[in-house]
Amino acid sequence: MSASRKSNNDTPRPESGIQRRLLNEAQEAEVREQRESRTATRRATVPALEEILYEPLPVLDHGFVRVVDYMGDDAAIVQAARVSYGKGTKQTRGDMALIDYLLRHRHTTPFEMCEIKFHVKLPIFVARQWIRHRTANVNEYSARYSVLDREFYIPAPEHLAAQSQANRQGRGEVLEGAQAARVLEILREDSARTYEHYEEMLNQREDGSIIDEDQPGLARELARMNLPLNIYTQWYWKCDLHNLLHFLSLRADPHAQYEIRAYADAMLETVKRWVPATYESFAKNAMDGARLSGPALKIVRRLLAGEAVVQEDSGLSKREWAELMTALGREA
Amino acid sequence: MSASRKSNNDTPRPESGIQRRLLNEAQEAEVREQRESRTATRRATVPALEEILYEPLPVLDHGFVRVVDYMGDDAAIVQAARVSYGKGTKQTRGDMALIDYLLRHRHTTPFEMCEIKFHVKLPIFVARQWIRHRTANVNEYSARYSVLDREFYIPAPEHLAAQSQANRQGRGEVLEGAQAARVLEILREDSARTYEHYEEMLNQREDGSIIDEDQPGLARELARMNLPLNIYTQWYWKCDLHNLLHFLSLRADPHAQYEIRAYADAMLETVKRWVPATYESFAKNAMDGARLSGPALKIVRRLLAGEAVVQEDSGLSKREWAELMTALGREA
Amino acid sequence: MSASRKSNNDTPRPESGIQRRLLNEAQEAEVREQRESRTATRRATVPALEEILYEPLPVLDHGFVRVVDYMGDDAAIVQAARVSYGKGTKQTRGDMALIDYLLRHRHTTPFEMCEIKFHVKLPIFVARQWIRHRTANVNEYSARYSVLDREFYIPAPEHLAAQSQANRQGRGEVLEGAQAARVLEILREDSARTYEHYEEMLNQREDGSIIDEDQPGLARELARMNLPLNIYTQWYWKCDLHNLLHFLSLRADPHAQYEIRAYADAMLETVKRWVPATYESFAKNAMDGARLSGPALKIVRRLLAGEAVVQEDSGLSKREWAELMTALGREA
Amino acid sequence: MSASRKSNNDTPRPESGIQRRLLNEAQEAEVREQRESRTATRRATVPALEEILYEPLPVLDHGFVRVVDYMGDDAAIVQAARVSYGKGTKQTRGDMALIDYLLRHRHTTPFEMCEIKFHVKLPIFVARQWIRHRTANVNEYSARYSVLDREFYIPAPEHLAAQSQANRQGRGEVLEGAQAARVLEILREDSARTYEHYEEMLNQREDGSIIDEDQPGLARELARMNLPLNIYTQWYWKCDLHNLLHFLSLRADPHAQYEIRAYADAMLETVKRWVPATYESFAKNAMDGARLSGPALKIVRRLLAGEAVVQEDSGLSKREWAELMTALGREA
Repeated sequence: MSASRKSNNDTPRPESGIQRRLLNEAQEAEVREQRESRTATRRATVPALEEILYEPLPVLDHGFVRVVDYMGDDAAIVQAARVSYGKGTKQTRGDMALIDYLLRHRHTTPFEMCEIKFHVKLPIFVARQWIRHRTANVNEYSARYSVLDREFYIPAPEHLAAQSQANRQGRGEVLEGAQAARVLEILREDSARTYEHYEEMLNQREDGSIIDEDQPGLARELARMNLPLNIYTQWYWKCDLHNLLHFLSLRADPHAQYEIRAYADAMLETVKRWVPATYESFAKNAMDGARLSGPALKIVRRLLAGEAVVQEDSGLSKREWAELMTALGREA
Repeated sequence: MSASRKSNNDTPRPESGIQRRLLNEAQEAEVREQRESRTATRRATVPALEEILYEPLPVLDHGFVRVVDYMGDDAAIVQAARVSYGKGTKQTRGDMALIDYLLRHRHTTPFEMCEIKFHVKLPIFVARQWIRHRTANVNEYSARYSVLDREFYIPAPEHLAAQSQANRQGRGEVLEGAQAARVLEILREDSARTYEHYEEMLNQREDGSIIDEDQPGLARELARMNLPLNIYTQWYWKCDLHNLLHFLSLRADPHAQYEIRAYADAMLETVKRWVPATYESFAKNAMDGARLSGPALKIVRRLLAGEAVVQEDSGLSKREWAELMTALGREA
Repeated sequence: MSASRKSNNDTPRPESGIQRRLLNEAQEAEVREQRESRTATRRATVPALEEILYEPLPVLDHGFVRVVDYMGDDAAIVQAARVSYGKGTKQTRGDMALIDYLLRHRHTTPFEMCEIKFHVKLPIFVARQWIRHRTANVNEYSARYSVLDREFYIPAPEHLAAQSQANRQGRGEVLEGAQAARVLEILREDSARTYEHYEEMLNQREDGSIIDEDQPGLARELARMNLPLNIYTQWYWKCDLHNLLHFLSLRADPHAQYEIRAYADAMLETVKRWVPATYESFAKNAMDGARLSGPALKIVRRLLAGEAVVQEDSGLSKREWAELMTALGREA
Repeated sequence: MSASRKSNNDTPRPESGIQRRLLNEAQEAEVREQRESRTATRRATVPALEEILYEPLPVLDHGFVRVVDYMGDDAAIVQAARVSYGKGTKQTRGDMALIDYLLRHRHTTPFEMCEIKFHVKLPIFVARQWIRHRTANVNEYSARYSVLDREFYIPAPEHLAAQSQANRQGRGEVLEGAQAARVLEILREDSARTYEHYEEMLNQREDGSIIDEDQPGLARELARMNLPLNIYTQWYWKCDLHNLLHFLSLRADPHAQYEIRAYADAMLETVKRWVPATYESFAKNAMDGARLSGPALKIVRRLLAGEAVVQEDSGLSKREWAELMTALGREA
């Protein structure tokens, strides 16, 4: 368990004295079976990723991410690049340097040669953010076809943040005391009540038993509409490495909503195991770097020339100025 | 208003004596302004579509579809095909026949040359089905950024169907009496209660006023998770004609859930106004036609040769046999 | 070597007494190494596909297709479908029947859960048809960066067909005698001459040696423009199973140009090894089946009712009538 | 005609005393007709773009780009963003500032709400680079179906550059004297000869007349393979604004091959007319800006703190160091 992922998931939940269960019994048996089987393959194989293959990595209170398949490795990127760039490439650069060069210069197609498939369990409001990334393949659990489990995301107290005053889509201070308690109470009670009503409308309990044998149940495709956005769903999600990195650069970003960031952080850890050279280059360039506009670059040059520049005569807006000062590690 | 679209939306709602309002005041003013403005253009223009441009077409109880922009027409498809197929095409076929040929033989790229943009208001559970079609551009209202309106989809009584026993993802008989009343009561009460709690957690009423000046509100990105899947959202959705027809062939199909079909039917009407030749060919080939497998074609041949074929010696499964009989207009 | 693929590639070439060489020495060594290595994996593995992994399957005179990686198998499709459709599915259907149901009813997303990567060597005019399918990942050899090999597609005599008179994009009778000889002479001579000029402009021979040490060579990105469309290029091409089947349904079709069909046929054989249940369903439904329009279905009903229908009173165009008669196995 | 586009196309060609003709007679008549027609529309209209609608903008020696349709304008981006971000947005920012904010922060979906369609005539080797961008719709002239025109790209003398020694995919000094003359001679002669052979194999002249009435012609789909990569093709190419800007950021870049850059420059001019606010933001951020990696940002901070940093102790490779110095306007 890496530090960075853990940081989003490490809070002991007051309400759970025991280790929460991520999978039901049937799923646990399936994972055990998948993890025990070993076959010989001629394909590129990544031992560090095989180690955690199929294993659910916990995210939020009931969610998880688990890698269920993958194709390719760092070497597959190099191999694809060498088809493109031919013999010349081989002599001049090591694999790590080539990967870094490709990533830095937006030669993205070699990174599309690797593919990974995740099984994810996540609240519906997170799923709705996630699905806006269209360059992936998805199979989601269908609530037209089957009954959803009684599992809801209830934020840990330290994530119950107030609306930010500075940023319309951000969070401010953590709520405390009675107000926090009231929010948790609402979320718990409405989750419980809407699920009971879901069962009542379906005329069927979560365990599959019928409530009233003398009447039919409402169609599942209708009954589900009463469920709130914090209920958990699950899906298989498959993506190539280039598009995965793009997803992660947006969703592991501090501006992303905490709940989706928790998933992105868990996935970053799997990327680190899978393609360590790519991960390192991505961290260096995409995560730790910054894009500077033409006018911002001009200001850096003026600063380097010893000029004292202030926002007012910089030609940048206040917001742009603040962003630049942050990138340069200065007070805004 | 066409017959087919109307058929999904024409039921007088007992609860609404007056015409429901689709847009708020600001939106109505915007539509009026958009509809009044006229400019001259050199672009291809379709008068029948201009007629309803910007106008909301009602769908379900609070939803709508309205065309807000379009590019191209039937002639643009022909023009693109003639770039591909060159001079030869011109002599041998009229425009209508060429469009029909292209559609029948899956020459899909000319249909991608037309584009349409819709503004849609729809319940979230419908939006979640819809978004599985990835070949479109979408901008959805953000509940991280703004507060959702208090509008929920409550099915009309005639759409309150029981779970089908034959088809795991279908509907059976319409519920009646006390059971129907109870379902509507649940949906209405849970919608109202969860929205009130949403306001309470936000510490802000729908009209924007603050409830308790002495405390902050929960972040919007968190508070929304308490809302149920029948709340309305809205988006701009832009798609090319080929991918739109694919969407409609799946979603205007009798197997699609009624609620999304109501949108697909409304959109079909706009397609009919926009590209009438394409619409006619699509109706004939995609909507009224059927795909027969190799074994099914063999059975048709045997039947035509006068042989009496029954399912048991057909080589088809019961389900395949039933599908074939339906296509042939015979009793299964 | 399967019958169907072979049929497109089995003609002994008069000009080649010996087995042609598909790979250069370095590539052969690489393939040998790849095929010899074996590692243990927890991933789904397909022995029948592993058998031919990395091995070049010959296509045309210098081309090949080889599978270099894959993800998933028939069971992965079932697994993804069961995430979507939940528990209910398991009881009612075997895997093969489920796959057939999904394919027949256009539930395409589970097929996107499998991925395959090919290394292909192909003439540029074939590559240009191929690349029109955009739902794949591609890394092509770059002639900006490296020098192309001296390899050109010269059709076998039995493929030197005349322009079809009936079909503007089809082939008619095979050319014979002096005319065929002249075509081959032109293709051979122009290939040889343009390649010599390519070397002259580059000031560099195919083996990398400099021609005239005292002058520079023309930039590779310019010199390549003198090469004809029958020169060979190569690429890595990665695609999910759903989009691969769509590609194959268009390119393994009798209406496709022979040269790309030869590649599609070779790829079909790899699909058969990889996902045999999917292959069988695809062959039955997509390859052997036919789509009938609404009016065509009405005619079948009239025929089944014993009516004698002729084209003139069928409401179908001559072309549609001919297509229907073909599907029904009747004389047009 | 803007300065930037002109700079790539302004060289008087020694061989053409008169203005070259971009379109044939039929095409010119079509353009005249398209430009003369005016209809009233309720859609958003952009007068500055209407001015040049349908008009071919010359690129290279026989190529052109012309805008044949468009959807949306700067205001459509703002409108889509305001659906997403709701009421709050309106008060706090002007349209131009909002567009700049969206572009800077990679909120790309609003830019997908605008669409443009080009008709382009271009050499095949340029078309092959271009088509690697898959997020567009394309209809290309089919040489299976029709006969290609006798038009070849022959570089202007000042573009006949030597292979760069420093950059494997770049150009060095311009070739001169006898060597340049020889290259032009090769390109002209091979173009002429291969086209004559194309006609001979087709048994048909460019004007459509048959050469030898007593024999058939080779199938067009085969004969085309003798043509070189500098022959012109044409296509309709349709793209949304976000993907167009991505294309232009790669292809109007100094590292792009001159020939495709000439097209990108012409298209940039049309973007400037179409969506001037977006163009301005794109120029400022994407074209004039630079991405700095984490380690590069650290060096800037050290430099700003007055430290003298040299490449050797920077932690950057020589290439990264050179790239950073360029961005900072310093000697490497």
